[in-house]
Amino acid sequence: MPRCWFVFLFLSFILLLATAEASQCSIRGIPLVRNISELPQDDYGRGGLSHITVAGSVSHGMKEIEVWLQTFSPGSRTPIHRHSCEEVFVVLKGSGTLYLASSSHEKYPGKPQEHFIFPNSTFHIPVNDAHQVWNTNENEDLQVLVIISRPPVKVFIYEDWSVPHTAAKLKFPYYWDEQCLQAPVKDEL
Amino acid sequence: MPRCWFVFLFLSFILLLATAEASQCSIRGIPLVRNISELPQDDYGRGGLSHITVAGSVSHGMKEIEVWLQTFSPGSRTPIHRHSCEEVFVVLKGSGTLYLASSSHEKYPGKPQEHFIFPNSTFHIPVNDAHQVWNTNENEDLQVLVIISRPPVKVFIYEDWSVPHTAAKLKFPYYWDEQCLQAPVKDEL
Ligand SMILES: [Zn+2]
Ligand SMILES: [Zn+2]
Repeated sequence: MPRCWFVFLFLSFILLLATAEASQCSIRGIPLVRNISELPQDDYGRGGLSHITVAGSVSHGMKEIEVWLQTFSPGSRTPIHRHSCEEVFVVLKGSGTLYLASSSHEKYPGKPQEHFIFPNSTFHIPVNDAHQVWNTNENEDLQVLVIISRPPVKVFIYEDWSVPHTAAKLKFPYYWDEQCLQAPVKDEL
Repeated sequence: MPRCWFVFLFLSFILLLATAEASQCSIRGIPLVRNISELPQDDYGRGGLSHITVAGSVSHGMKEIEVWLQTFSPGSRTPIHRHSCEEVFVVLKGSGTLYLASSSHEKYPGKPQEHFIFPNSTFHIPVNDAHQVWNTNENEDLQVLVIISRPPVKVFIYEDWSVPHTAAKLKFPYYWDEQCLQAPVKDEL
């Protein structure tokens, strides 16, 4: 009965896929001590980015802090964005520019201030200030450790610095949380 | 009038001391981007430790996350302790042992599990579990980046693993917060 075998194989294949998907989005069975170089790494559709969630809400069950290791190739950058959580950067390698508009009380971000960031430097982003981190060094990758509070992160993205705060677009779940996190109904935000 | 000059000089000196003290404990005027190697570093009376508050509640006005860079010389270690905040470690250099007693529901920590920690590894401590990080590598410093939530940290210290949870001693403010943080009245804890 070749047809029966085909159905069996097909169902087994579906089951296998479902299991694989579930385990990727489950925090069960992850080891306590993890090798960062063995953790999933992806650009999540953003050219020039390498993102690793070192300790995360969706991936490791963190409730109050989340840690990322990100590498930006020369010229690559975050979107212009804001969030209502705290965020700390530690620059491990390379250099670049932090653009920061301390304007949460104005109508739109406006021209940002430029800050040079360099190896072994640290900075934090004031809550709700629009900002962008840019690898403006043509010769070297920029590697940062990023720490945020209140994960998973809810990000408002600006097309440019003159977009009104009220028109910034919510991106939630954020790129690396999309696979395992469903968008909640609006009330939950 | 030499006496008058003496009084003037004495008062100036007192004023200078007061200003220096105030500026060490003030978050005003700290630059947005800071060079970590220029930040205050101390052992805070704990031999073999080098502690730097990279981004802190007391020193930088953080409200939800705090970041430390700590180096443990061979043989040095944290006390056995617990806290009700989340804590993430990223091992930058060296290796050692994490001792962890997952026993917050028992009367005392008991014999801890031993976990090998190594360069580029990460781990987080379950809330309220007693733990200790120990540089058990005789040949190399252990350097870690530590992230905690809900700063400033309130730590309960155990003399050994058989001390009942209820007898662990609260250390607050913690070593590096002592200089600028007064112990609050008990209700505030
Ligand atoms: Zn950000
Ligand atoms: Zn701890």
